[in-house]
Amino acid sequence: MQTLRSFLEGRWASGREPFATLVDPSTEEPLARTSTSGLDFGAALEFARKQGGPLLRELSFAARGALLKAWSKALYDKRDELISLAMKNGGNTRGDAKFDVDGAIGTLAHYAELGAGLGDLHALRDGEAVQLGRTARYSGIHLWVPRDGVAVHINAFNFPAWGTAEKAACALLAGVPIISKPATSTALVAHRLAEIGGEVLPAGTFSFVCGSPGDLLEKLGPQDVVAFTGSSQTAAKLREQLRKRGAKLNVEADSLNAAVLGPDVEPGSATWDLFIQDVVRDMTQKAGQKCTAVRRIFVARARLEAAQEALVERLATIRVGEPARADVTMGPLSTADQLRDVRAGIQKLAAESQAAFGGDGSVKADAPAGKGYFVSPVLFVSQDPRNAKVLHKDEVFGPVATIAASDTPAQLVQKGGGGLVCSVYSDDRDFLRKCVFAVAPYHGRIYLGSEKVVGQTLGPGAVLPQLLHGGPGHAGGGEELGGLRGMQLYSQRVALQGDRALLDAIAPALEKPPAAGGH
Amino acid sequence: MQTLRSFLEGRWASGREPFATLVDPSTEEPLARTSTSGLDFGAALEFARKQGGPLLRELSFAARGALLKAWSKALYDKRDELISLAMKNGGNTRGDAKFDVDGAIGTLAHYAELGAGLGDLHALRDGEAVQLGRTARYSGIHLWVPRDGVAVHINAFNFPAWGTAEKAACALLAGVPIISKPATSTALVAHRLAEIGGEVLPAGTFSFVCGSPGDLLEKLGPQDVVAFTGSSQTAAKLREQLRKRGAKLNVEADSLNAAVLGPDVEPGSATWDLFIQDVVRDMTQKAGQKCTAVRRIFVARARLEAAQEALVERLATIRVGEPARADVTMGPLSTADQLRDVRAGIQKLAAESQAAFGGDGSVKADAPAGKGYFVSPVLFVSQDPRNAKVLHKDEVFGPVATIAASDTPAQLVQKGGGGLVCSVYSDDRDFLRKCVFAVAPYHGRIYLGSEKVVGQTLGPGAVLPQLLHGGPGHAGGGEELGGLRGMQLYSQRVALQGDRALLDAIAPALEKPPAAGGH
Repeated sequence: MQTLRSFLEGRWASGREPFATLVDPSTEEPLARTSTSGLDFGAALEFARKQGGPLLRELSFAARGALLKAWSKALYDKRDELISLAMKNGGNTRGDAKFDVDGAIGTLAHYAELGAGLGDLHALRDGEAVQLGRTARYSGIHLWVPRDGVAVHINAFNFPAWGTAEKAACALLAGVPIISKPATSTALVAHRLAEIGGEVLPAGTFSFVCGSPGDLLEKLGPQDVVAFTGSSQTAAKLREQLRKRGAKLNVEADSLNAAVLGPDVEPGSATWDLFIQDVVRDMTQKAGQKCTAVRRIFVARARLEAAQEALVERLATIRVGEPARADVTMGPLSTADQLRDVRAGIQKLAAESQAAFGGDGSVKADAPAGKGYFVSPVLFVSQDPRNAKVLHKDEVFGPVATIAASDTPAQLVQKGGGGLVCSVYSDDRDFLRKCVFAVAPYHGRIYLGSEKVVGQTLGPGAVLPQLLHGGPGHAGGGEELGGLRGMQLYSQRVALQGDRALLDAIAPALEKPPAAGGH
Repeated sequence: MQTLRSFLEGRWASGREPFATLVDPSTEEPLARTSTSGLDFGAALEFARKQGGPLLRELSFAARGALLKAWSKALYDKRDELISLAMKNGGNTRGDAKFDVDGAIGTLAHYAELGAGLGDLHALRDGEAVQLGRTARYSGIHLWVPRDGVAVHINAFNFPAWGTAEKAACALLAGVPIISKPATSTALVAHRLAEIGGEVLPAGTFSFVCGSPGDLLEKLGPQDVVAFTGSSQTAAKLREQLRKRGAKLNVEADSLNAAVLGPDVEPGSATWDLFIQDVVRDMTQKAGQKCTAVRRIFVARARLEAAQEALVERLATIRVGEPARADVTMGPLSTADQLRDVRAGIQKLAAESQAAFGGDGSVKADAPAGKGYFVSPVLFVSQDPRNAKVLHKDEVFGPVATIAASDTPAQLVQKGGGGLVCSVYSDDRDFLRKCVFAVAPYHGRIYLGSEKVVGQTLGPGAVLPQLLHGGPGHAGGGEELGGLRGMQLYSQRVALQGDRALLDAIAPALEKPPAAGGH
């Protein structure tokens, strides 16, 4: 059995007993083991701060972008291998695995391009210069400069490739060295990604922790950043832990993302079909293990029956089973813990709603017997969404969603307490305007599904490097990606005031805004 | 004796016994009393959320700006009265009082103008639209939308007018109702400001808590914001308290702001004179009770003697005494607690440094005997700034600073652990570039003092509405002001994706960026 290693101080090193075991979630067979016991995280942090930080800050944005491009290309060369690993260790179908691996390659390439667009600059201006004195000679500018610390990335089990890459791309382009820690259970893909990254990224700019983070977080200070993706419970612990250290924390947590169908959308219309297709994709892609997946579906009262019927019909075509089989469209959950949690979540939902599909989540026909973390897609119907408790509070991180009728859907959406994404399907501008502004303070992203964008979108669950990823409240309050905005987490915004010519000499403005930056 | 009141649910109301007493810090005579005991903060929050929030969000930026303009004008009409109150209750000289009151009037006027520039819009775009699909039809935009909550403003004792106004301007323009709480000890000015504001601002958009906040903070939720200015100790308590409530917290805390004199600056040059003038102003304006005041002064070894001599010479001309007297240039500290803390701080500094002026802070000649919170300006010299502990850690919030020689000043500046502002005096671009980028990650603002800006600047201690105010680490990690950036604290940034024409219809872009926005 392969023993995975960590990459610290520019060297690969294995931990000591006890080891954690990684398994194939379809067969429960052990695939690899890992440990960080005995590794020196203090030395790793110092190495990153002393070697990686100064090295990156010396590089222009274009040079940092070139590193990302090299990593992206190297990953592309190993794409098939990475996809195989994701299928094995993550329980991904080939489509799911491509979604993760291609997401990683594409995000790195996107940030490489943004870096190229910023050229020789070392710090990014925020907005225009502003006159402060009687004459324009005395002026002020705002700059984003790299923090003088380390970025610790704690990724979730569901996107070992994409999660690692999206965080790394933003931090490295911003000029901050990273220490990347994947979820142990699905670390096989991230480990390979790190092996490839370790060959193209200069020593100290990239480190990799494969297993428990030990005392790593206790050694952080106010110039450091932790970017965490995972559960609200772990996020709360991190918040408490880092509050005393002063390190900046970005949380991207679970959320109860809603899909809203406008009352104008007729069954069978293009917008209707987009809605049905998006919801079913979001429920079943990666077996619903996406923090952006649709969990709550709100439709006008008159549309409930038709929508429920259409969703059930599509869910019935999903084939659950071993993801390597070509006819299988949904693999298992990724871990035994996930299976336990999802089953418990289904039970809680069942106490206040009726099952319209999938009942208790047990797989009837297609799944292999006995082994593997398989679960059926489940659709619940809530008769009383205004007073439902579980519906708006407990995310079931699997192929599970609840549909309900409502004539005031925005109020129900708000009850989720903050989400990563809300999707609104309508071609009625007044409805859209009202709904969008009512739910906007509660979200990091809103997807407008209309007939005009049919055939162009990947659905609300796809996280794009151009748009912000994160959300307020329940979703953790974080912000990642969003083009150049993604660098802000790793930067200090500082105002400079003084002689205008001096400011322009010290920190030149970008001649031409980058096309893809959206900034 | 006047009993101050709070403004809640659109009505003025007094609290019950026990009352806190406000005094004249020159004479220690009681001026007024206040209490919030028995007031219903839960109802006040609900009123602000239900009445004030929707009302503000319905208004365009221009209409919100018009409210700020009306308040600014009404304050201007009462300027002399406000200045008198500041002199009486704050121990301000007339110059100090004008700095505070005119700061309030000017900041409201500045944000009124920004609002006018944004015209009919209700939400502000962040950056340009970006293409997401194969064609530009499928695009994304980012928007700043007002949070669906209340902004609680907790202000410090030193700027009762300006502090109230700068926070109010940003929140109201962003579209979020406010509950403003001044420091009780100097609340007389803020109380008058609120009385005037209560007459021009619509019910529910502005509330005022005069005294203890009681259980106000325990009733906040994830859509609410607390903006706090004050000590690191109180900030730490707030952080703990609000972490469980999920409300957003912005902290603007004390910091050990440094002034750096470049080795190129010759004694007697224009830049030298600017440096001396700025440092002495910052030390003595408002008796050093400015969170942006210079606390640490680092000069090249060859310049130490001359700089120390020049500062001492200027400090000797400061006349400490009752601020109403025309020949007095520095009034007392604002409270008995401040006097106790400043004296304790001077003692701690004296244990590791030598006094070059003012010794133990006791006032020799000009101050009235017996009564009042007077203290002399004090300048310390540190012989070993690299190993000094108190120097880089404990801010003495009075007319106290320490000078030291260093050939690596940026490293010493960093030892402060994060500050609101750092000033660098030099005409050498290479020195400036290196120094600025070394200290930038540790600051919210950097002031470049050079011969080119002599006569135009108000020194590093003046907070301008155009530039960010706040700083990382020790300074609390907050961001306020900075033109339109000041609205970000009160807003959610949300990405919208969909049909481009639909996005433009729902959330139009600004036709022409506002001149003064710097955004």
